[in-house]
Amino acid sequence: MAGPHFRDGHPWMVDVGGKDPSARVAVAEATVRLPADAAAALDEPNAKGDPVAVAELAGIHGSKRTADLIPLCHPLPLDRCEVVATRDGAVVRFTATAATHARTGVEMEAMTAASVAALTLYDMLKSVSKGITIDGVRLLSKEGGKSGAWSASDPST
Amino acid sequence: MAGPHFRDGHPWMVDVGGKDPSARVAVAEATVRLPADAAAALDEPNAKGDPVAVAELAGIHGSKRTADLIPLCHPLPLDRCEVVATRDGAVVRFTATAATHARTGVEMEAMTAASVAALTLYDMLKSVSKGITIDGVRLLSKEGGKSGAWSASDPST
Amino acid sequence: MAGPHFRDGHPWMVDVGGKDPSARVAVAEATVRLPADAAAALDEPNAKGDPVAVAELAGIHGSKRTADLIPLCHPLPLDRCEVVATRDGAVVRFTATAATHARTGVEMEAMTAASVAALTLYDMLKSVSKGITIDGVRLLSKEGGKSGAWSASDPST
Amino acid sequence: MAGPHFRDGHPWMVDVGGKDPSARVAVAEATVRLPADAAAALDEPNAKGDPVAVAELAGIHGSKRTADLIPLCHPLPLDRCEVVATRDGAVVRFTATAATHARTGVEMEAMTAASVAALTLYDMLKSVSKGITIDGVRLLSKEGGKSGAWSASDPST
Amino acid sequence: MAGPHFRDGHPWMVDVGGKDPSARVAVAEATVRLPADAAAALDEPNAKGDPVAVAELAGIHGSKRTADLIPLCHPLPLDRCEVVATRDGAVVRFTATAATHARTGVEMEAMTAASVAALTLYDMLKSVSKGITIDGVRLLSKEGGKSGAWSASDPST
Amino acid sequence: MAGPHFRDGHPWMVDVGGKDPSARVAVAEATVRLPADAAAALDEPNAKGDPVAVAELAGIHGSKRTADLIPLCHPLPLDRCEVVATRDGAVVRFTATAATHARTGVEMEAMTAASVAALTLYDMLKSVSKGITIDGVRLLSKEGGKSGAWSASDPST
Repeated sequence: MAGPHFRDGHPWMVDVGGKDPSARVAVAEATVRLPADAAAALDEPNAKGDPVAVAELAGIHGSKRTADLIPLCHPLPLDRCEVVATRDGAVVRFTATAATHARTGVEMEAMTAASVAALTLYDMLKSVSKGITIDGVRLLSKEGGKSGAWSASDPST
Repeated sequence: MAGPHFRDGHPWMVDVGGKDPSARVAVAEATVRLPADAAAALDEPNAKGDPVAVAELAGIHGSKRTADLIPLCHPLPLDRCEVVATRDGAVVRFTATAATHARTGVEMEAMTAASVAALTLYDMLKSVSKGITIDGVRLLSKEGGKSGAWSASDPST
Repeated sequence: MAGPHFRDGHPWMVDVGGKDPSARVAVAEATVRLPADAAAALDEPNAKGDPVAVAELAGIHGSKRTADLIPLCHPLPLDRCEVVATRDGAVVRFTATAATHARTGVEMEAMTAASVAALTLYDMLKSVSKGITIDGVRLLSKEGGKSGAWSASDPST
Repeated sequence: MAGPHFRDGHPWMVDVGGKDPSARVAVAEATVRLPADAAAALDEPNAKGDPVAVAELAGIHGSKRTADLIPLCHPLPLDRCEVVATRDGAVVRFTATAATHARTGVEMEAMTAASVAALTLYDMLKSVSKGITIDGVRLLSKEGGKSGAWSASDPST
Repeated sequence: MAGPHFRDGHPWMVDVGGKDPSARVAVAEATVRLPADAAAALDEPNAKGDPVAVAELAGIHGSKRTADLIPLCHPLPLDRCEVVATRDGAVVRFTATAATHARTGVEMEAMTAASVAALTLYDMLKSVSKGITIDGVRLLSKEGGKSGAWSASDPST
Repeated sequence: MAGPHFRDGHPWMVDVGGKDPSARVAVAEATVRLPADAAAALDEPNAKGDPVAVAELAGIHGSKRTADLIPLCHPLPLDRCEVVATRDGAVVRFTATAATHARTGVEMEAMTAASVAALTLYDMLKSVSKGITIDGVRLLSKEGGKSGAWSASDPST
C-alpha cells in the first residue's frame, strides 16, 4: 500500500514528530436527505426541543472522540469546533469547522463532527422515516501544515 | 417536535422499559467514492497492509461506541457485528450488520459501524486525495421489534 | 470498612449475579445557584441557543459514562434517561431520571446525569461568573430491587 | 445567549486559537454530607480498604474525562491533578487541583475531579444511607490566562 | 484463518445471538516481577498510599473498558469484578475474577483486569526501576457456557 | 510510599508542569506463547484475515486509551505509534513504539500498546486454546526527558 499509513506492511500512526506545531483549520460537511414525512416532522412547531440543535451539539462533542474512532488518527487538542446546520427544504446540511495548533491536521475531526451530527439527526428522525440518507460527507477546505491551503471549490489547488 | 426524542420540549432517551427484549438485526451501508489517484493507491500491490481491512475492523470497533456518540441512543450489548467491504472500481461499499437481544433496535449501531469504516478509509487515503466523498449512508434493512421487518429494497414495507 | 464495596480489605465490584434482573428507576437532582450576573445572562434573549437545554442533553449523555467514572459501579444498559431543568430566579434545578432492567440499581446513573448537567451549565456560564455553586446533589427516589421503593420526601421509608 | 458558548445561536467550542499557551492552575472543591449511619460506616476499622482513598483516586481519573462529559469543553493535556480529602465529622471535603499549559483554563477539570470524587464516595456508602448529599461544588481559585488570578476567598478579585 | 473471528476473510464480532444468556465466571492472573529497588520501594512505610491497592482498583475499573480495547470482543454487562493482589518478595500477583450473565464469556474481562492492574503497578514504580516485567498473564479458570468449566490446574479438562 | 505517585499519603498525577516539552520515544514489547493448536491455527492459509495484523492495529488504537486505563498517567498527544509483530514458531512478539513531544514520557503508551496487541491476539485464538500465555511485557528502551536514554540491552545505563 502506497499511503503513509503502512510501513513495511504494518499499519502505523504516521510519525509527525519532525514537524513543528502550527495552526490548522479544516472544514467539512455532511448532508442529510429527508423523505417528506421526516422533513414534515422537523416543521412541526415545538416549544423548545430542536433536533437540529441537538445534532449540532453532538457533532461538536463527537469531534473529541475522533482519535478513539479512527485507529491510526493522532490524538490532538482542539482550539475550536463548531457545527452549523442549514436547511433547504428536505435537506439539512451540517458544516463542521475544527481548529488546532498541532503537528498534524484536523481534517478527521471536522469529518467526524459532520458525520456524528448527521447520524444524530438520523437517530432523532428514524422513527418517522427509515429512508433518511446521509450524503456528501466531504472536506470543504483546509489551512495550515506543509501542504498549505486547499479548497474543494478551487480544484486547481 | 413530533419525534419521540422530545417530551414536553425536553430531550430524552426514550423509555423502552415497557418492551420485552427481542432479537434485533439491522443492516446499513456507506459508500466511499474515490478519485482516480486514491483508487489507484488501493490497487498498488502491498505485502500485507490493507486499508480496506483496517476500515472494516474500525467499523466493528466503532459500533461499540454508538451510544457514546449519539446523545439519545440507548446503550446496549451486541450479539454480533460485522462490516464487509466490496469494491467496484472507484467505489468501496461498506455493509455493516449489527444484532442484539434488547428492548430497542440496532439501527444506529449499524449506521455508525458503516460510517466509521468509511471515515477510516478516508483517513488512510486522504494524503493521496482530498476529494474523497462518503455517500449513501443509509439503512438497508431491519428485523425484530414491534415494527417488524423492513427493507430498503421493498418500499411497500 | 463495613460497606459492601470492600471484601477482605480489597475493593470489589459487588457480586449481583445472584439477583434476578428487575425494573429499576431512580430520580436524582442537582441545583445550580447563580450569582446575579450569571442569572442575568440566562435572561438575555437569544434566537436559538439555550445553555439549559445543552445542559439537559449533556446530563443524559453523561449518564451513559457512569460506569466509566465510578470505579466500582456496574456497567448496565439503560431503558430510559431524561434530565429536566426548572428555574426559579437564580436557581436552576436539574431533575434526572434513569431506568433499567438489571441486577442492580440506577441511582448512580441518575446522580451522574444530574451532576453532569449541572457541571455543563457551570461551564457555559463560568466566563460570566466564577461564583456559581452546585448544591444539593442527592437522590430523590428509587424503585425496584430487593430494598424496594424509597423517597426522600418520605423519611419513614 | 450572551455567553461565549453560542455564536449566532449555534453552540460552539469557543475559539482559543488566538491565545498563547500558558501555565494554568485551578482548584475546586466538593463537600459530601453524611447522615450518621454513613459517617459511622467510615469510622469502622478496616484492615486495608478505604473508601475515601478510592474516591480521591477516582476524582483524579475522572478529571481526564472532562472533555468527554462537558460538550463544549476543550480537550487538553494535564500537567498535574490531585484530589485531597479532609474529614470533619460527618463532612468529607474533596479539594481538587488541576494544572496544564494550554490555551484555555482547567476550571472544568478541577470541578469534574471534585464531583467524581464525591460521586464515588456516595456510591460506596449508598447502601448504608440514601440521604447522602453533595454540596458546595465550586471553584476555589484559579491562576493563569488573560483574566489572571482569582480566589473565592478574596471577592474583590 | 480457522478461528471464529474471521468469516470469508473478514473480521467479525462472532454471532452469539443463538445462545441463551447464562452465568459465566472467569479468573485470570498477571505477575509483576520487581527488581530489588522496586521491591524495596514497596516495603517503605507510608501513612496511607498503597500502590498495590491503586492497581487493584485500576484493574477493576479497566475491566469495564475491555470491549473498547479488544476490537472483536462483545460488549457485555458485568455482575462482579474483583482484583486481589498477593505478594511474595519481589513478585506481586494480581488475580482477577469477572462474572456476568451473558451470551458469551468473560475471559477477556478477567485478562484485561489483570493486565491493567499490572500496568498500573508498573506505572507507579517505573521511576524507581525500568526493569520491571509483567509475566504470566493467563487464564486460570472459567465456568459456564457451552464449553463448561475449565481450569489451568487440571489440564485434562 | 517512596514513589512519586503519592504525596502526603494521597495519590496524585505527578506535577510535570515545571519541565519543558521535549521529544520522547519509548519502545516496549510483549510476547504471546501459543500452545501447539493455537500456533497451528495461525499457520492455516486464509484468503485475507490475519489475526496478527488485527492485533497490531488494536495495539496502536489501544495506546490512545492509556490515560483512560492507568489512573495516574498523564494524558498526552502522540506523534507516532506503531506495533510490529514478529513470529518465531509458537511465539509471537509485539514490539510497540510510541513517541511524543511532551512534559513526560511515553513508556506507558508503549507498554499499553504492546499489552493490548497481545490481549487481542489472545482473544482471537482463545477458542482454539485456553493455555495461551502473555509474558515479558517490558520496556526495551526510552529516549528523551531529564533521565535521558535507557536501553534494556545495556544494563549500565
